[in-house]
Amino acid sequence: MSLAANGLFRYPIVQAPMAGGASCPPLAAAVSEAGGLGFLAGGYKTADGMYQEIKQTRGLTRRPFGVNLFLPQTGHVDQAAVEAYRGQLAGEAGWYEVSLAEEDIIGTCDDGYEAKLAILVEDPVPVVSFTFGCPTPAVLDRLRKAGTHTTVTVTSVDEARAAQAAGADSLCVQGVEAGGHQGTHRDDPQTDGTAGVGLLALLSQVRESVALPLIAAGGLMRGAQLAAVVAAGAEAAQLGTAFLACPESGAHPLHKKALTDPMFAHTELTRAFSGRPARGLVNRFMREHGPYAPAAYPQIHHMTAGLRKAAAAAGDAQGMALWAGQGHRLARALPAGQLVEVLAAELAEARRAVEATQMRSES
Amino acid sequence: MSLAANGLFRYPIVQAPMAGGASCPPLAAAVSEAGGLGFLAGGYKTADGMYQEIKQTRGLTRRPFGVNLFLPQTGHVDQAAVEAYRGQLAGEAGWYEVSLAEEDIIGTCDDGYEAKLAILVEDPVPVVSFTFGCPTPAVLDRLRKAGTHTTVTVTSVDEARAAQAAGADSLCVQGVEAGGHQGTHRDDPQTDGTAGVGLLALLSQVRESVALPLIAAGGLMRGAQLAAVVAAGAEAAQLGTAFLACPESGAHPLHKKALTDPMFAHTELTRAFSGRPARGLVNRFMREHGPYAPAAYPQIHHMTAGLRKAAAAAGDAQGMALWAGQGHRLARALPAGQLVEVLAAELAEARRAVEATQMRSES
Repeated sequence: MSLAANGLFRYPIVQAPMAGGASCPPLAAAVSEAGGLGFLAGGYKTADGMYQEIKQTRGLTRRPFGVNLFLPQTGHVDQAAVEAYRGQLAGEAGWYEVSLAEEDIIGTCDDGYEAKLAILVEDPVPVVSFTFGCPTPAVLDRLRKAGTHTTVTVTSVDEARAAQAAGADSLCVQGVEAGGHQGTHRDDPQTDGTAGVGLLALLSQVRESVALPLIAAGGLMRGAQLAAVVAAGAEAAQLGTAFLACPESGAHPLHKKALTDPMFAHTELTRAFSGRPARGLVNRFMREHGPYAPAAYPQIHHMTAGLRKAAAAAGDAQGMALWAGQGHRLARALPAGQLVEVLAAELAEARRAVEATQMRSES
Repeated sequence: MSLAANGLFRYPIVQAPMAGGASCPPLAAAVSEAGGLGFLAGGYKTADGMYQEIKQTRGLTRRPFGVNLFLPQTGHVDQAAVEAYRGQLAGEAGWYEVSLAEEDIIGTCDDGYEAKLAILVEDPVPVVSFTFGCPTPAVLDRLRKAGTHTTVTVTSVDEARAAQAAGADSLCVQGVEAGGHQGTHRDDPQTDGTAGVGLLALLSQVRESVALPLIAAGGLMRGAQLAAVVAAGAEAAQLGTAFLACPESGAHPLHKKALTDPMFAHTELTRAFSGRPARGLVNRFMREHGPYAPAAYPQIHHMTAGLRKAAAAAGDAQGMALWAGQGHRLARALPAGQLVEVLAAELAEARRAVEATQMRSES
C-alpha cells in the first residue's frame, strides 16, 4: 500500500535519516509537522539513546515520523589493510594528538541492531527504514505486525528484488548522487566504490523490477526534481543535504557553511572516513587518505572518530567528514518546516508546467 | 528560442550522435521521419565523409536533423604516459597481431574541425552540436547566420555558463549516466574521471545558472524518464544507448547484443580505449587496462583502433569498446521510428499520470 494511503505524509517529502548528529528530534518533528515525513537516525547510537530521541520527537509532534536502522556488518574485513590504514593516518593522529584506537569494536559492529529492534517492536513508530543491508523476513514481519511501515534502502535492481522478496513495504531507491553513505547491501572491495548508478537511470530499472512503492533519493534539492522522480515512478522523494542546511539540523556549523562555500566545489565517494563508500565535499583529508582507505566498515568509522572530532573542535573543515549530495550548491538555510512548504509549492508548480506542456502538445 | 518553436522536432526526443559507426544516415533519417531529431556524428570522419552522410540523410528525409562535431583537443599530453600505455597493451597487440602505431596523429587531433565547419557553413544543416569543448563565439555566430541552431554539450555548471557566454542556442546537459564519452570540455588527468554528476542533480543546477533551452542526456531509456527531465526543466531528452539497439544503428551486432546480455551487468567510465573518460560495459579489456590508461585523447583512441577492430573481427566482445549508458538493460531492439513513437506514447502517459496525481492532491 502506498505511503500516502497510509497517511504517512501530506506532501511526498521525506527527510533522510542522517546518522552522526544531523538528524535530531527538532528536525524530524519540524518536517513531520509541516506535512513531510521526518526521520531519526538510529545508527551510531545506543538503543537507549535512540529511544530517548523517539520520546523527544513524540513530545514535539503527533504526526508520523520514521526511525532508520543500520544492518549489522558481517562481511570479512582484511585486518592487515585496517592496520596499514592506521599507519597511513598516523601523521594526522600526531598532529591532532588523538588516538586511533577502535574501542569496543565488537559491540559496535552490529550497531545494537537487536536491542533497537526490540524497542521498536515493543513501542512502535510509524516507519522504520533500513540501510546497509536487507532485514530478514522475520524482522520485517515483526515490525509489520506491530503496525510499522518498513522501507529498505536499495542501490541496485538486485537489492530491490531481495528487499521485495523479504517483505519490505516500500523501497528507498538511492542514486549515486546521494550524500553520505551509499546504502549498498554489501560493500565489495573489488569495486572502487564509484560504480553507482544515477538516480533517474536506477529508478526506471527498479520501477520495472518490483511492485512496491518507491522513495527516490540522491541529489534532490528542488520541487522540480521531486516532480521529476514522481514522473519516473516514485511515490515520494527523500532529501538529506537539503535538510542538513536547516537551522534545526544537528550538523556542525562548518559543515552547513561548507555546502555552499565555493571552496568546496565537488563531491566524491570515499572510504576515507568510514571504510564504506560515502559522498562528501572533497577536502584535504579525503584527497590525502581516500586512495588508501580499505573496505572495512565500521572499523574505519571508529578509527577516524577522534580525528573527525578534533578537526571539528579545531574549526578545520579540511579534516571533517563533510557529507553532501551532488546538489549541495542548491542548499537553502531555511527552517525545516518552511523548506517543506517551499518544496511542496515548487512541486505543484512543476506539475502544472508539465500539464501545460501536455495541453500544448495535444492542441 | 526553444527547439520546438524552431520546428526542429514534433516529439522532444533527440537521437544522440554516436561517433564510431552507430549513428548513420538510416538511423538519423528514421528518427527524424518519426518526429524526433536524428543526428549524424561528424567525429572520426573526414570532412568529405561527413558531407557524404549529410547528403545521404537528405535523400532519406526532408525533416530536420543534426550533425555533431568534436572540438580540437589542445591540452598537453604526457608522451611518456602514452608510451607506457603502449607497453601495457603490447601483449594484446601480440595476441591480435596488430600494430599500436598512431598514424597521422597530427591530422586527427583536430578531427578536421575547420574543414567540417566550412562545409556546414557553406551548405547548412538545421542543427550542429559540439562535444569535448566550447566553440568560439565567431564559430557559433557563423553557424547562426547560416540559419543553423547550435547546441553545446556540457557536464557542469561552469561549462554551461561558458557555452551561454559564447553564444550557443541551446545546451545538451550530459549526466554521468551517459554511455560513450563524457563531453567534458577539458579532461583533467588529476581527477579519476569518475567524478561526474548525476543527470537530475546536474539539470537543476544548470537550469538555475543559464537561460538557454536544455536537452537532457544520460541513461534515458523510457518515456517516463523523458517526462521526468521535462519536469526538471529540460525541453527535450537525448538518447544514445536506446537507439544503439535499433536495427538501423551501425553498431556492431555483438555490441547490440551485449547491451542486454546478463554477462555484462555493469558499466564504468574508463580511459582504456580512447584516453578520455567514456562509459561502457565492463569487459576484460576495460578491467585489465583501465587502471593504467592516461588522459591522452585522441592518441589512445588511435592507438587502440587496430585492437578494437581485431577484437570485433574475432567476435570477441571482451576486447571491444562496448559503449553503453547506465540504462542499457532497458534497451529495446525496435526499429528507430517505432521506438520514437513508443517513447512519445510513454511520455504522454507519464504526463497524464502526473496530472492525475496533481488533481488528487488538490482534491
